[in-house]
Amino acid sequence: MSGPILRRYAAAGAWDEVEVRAYKNDDAAPYRDVTRRVLFEHPELACALRYFEVAPGGHTTLERHRHVHAVVIQRGRGRVLVGSRVEAVAPFDLVEVPPLAWHQFRADADAPLGFLCMVNAQRDRPELPDAATLARLREDPAIAAFIRVDGGAATG
Amino acid sequence: MSGPILRRYAAAGAWDEVEVRAYKNDDAAPYRDVTRRVLFEHPELACALRYFEVAPGGHTTLERHRHVHAVVIQRGRGRVLVGSRVEAVAPFDLVEVPPLAWHQFRADADAPLGFLCMVNAQRDRPELPDAATLARLREDPAIAAFIRVDGGAATG
Repeated sequence: MSGPILRRYAAAGAWDEVEVRAYKNDDAAPYRDVTRRVLFEHPELACALRYFEVAPGGHTTLERHRHVHAVVIQRGRGRVLVGSRVEAVAPFDLVEVPPLAWHQFRADADAPLGFLCMVNAQRDRPELPDAATLARLREDPAIAAFIRVDGGAATG
Repeated sequence: MSGPILRRYAAAGAWDEVEVRAYKNDDAAPYRDVTRRVLFEHPELACALRYFEVAPGGHTTLERHRHVHAVVIQRGRGRVLVGSRVEAVAPFDLVEVPPLAWHQFRADADAPLGFLCMVNAQRDRPELPDAATLARLREDPAIAAFIRVDGGAATG
């Protein structure tokens, strides 16, 4: 739908007139303590802009898909896995998730991690890692440590 | 082009590995003290995400176009004209510029105004106001005061 011209930022990752949504509608996708806000979604826009906030200690789903994520970190601190890289991120770092790169966002234990994410309005559904993929990812010690906490078990 | 996975925010509206560009390539479009950075532009993304920064006292071009702007204010303070509304904005307010709405962004005199702007990769060229349009816009005293400073004269 077309939205109002101005929606003011309230505080702490919240806006007036922007609904908080469940991160996923798919109960099978493991994640912890993530909320989603759709900031812009318009019939004349070819992309959507969403805001995700991961609470301290939480994480998004480890997944991949054909569509690209264009991410601007907005608030807090955390780490990201993209492909074979694990990196610390802070406001307003830019993260690009290329097609079919396994990726996950984790907030630090003592801070939330809030980020804007631009995606094509028309996009494919995410794929979850199977056991063989998880085993292969874990061959890299940095990735093994990063995804260790739940390692694919459903917690969301 | 496809970009690097991570580009870190440096400070004050600047990122590592993100080039500062002229705001417009069109010398006929009036503006003052605006720079542009293309944060995300990817063959598989249907939109681009740009960062514009208006220096204190500066302003973007007063213009309109068919394509929609989806804006997140990132830094500083200023005011925006969208259609018939003039509003003060601050981080991280959301501004949606609907199709064919006349619009302009102005930084306050003592602060920059930096904002993210999402647009379709395929989009129409902006239209500038002619004398009749300016006269009609100026019938609203709030708009007249807002666009007063250069009122269409080329300063960029």
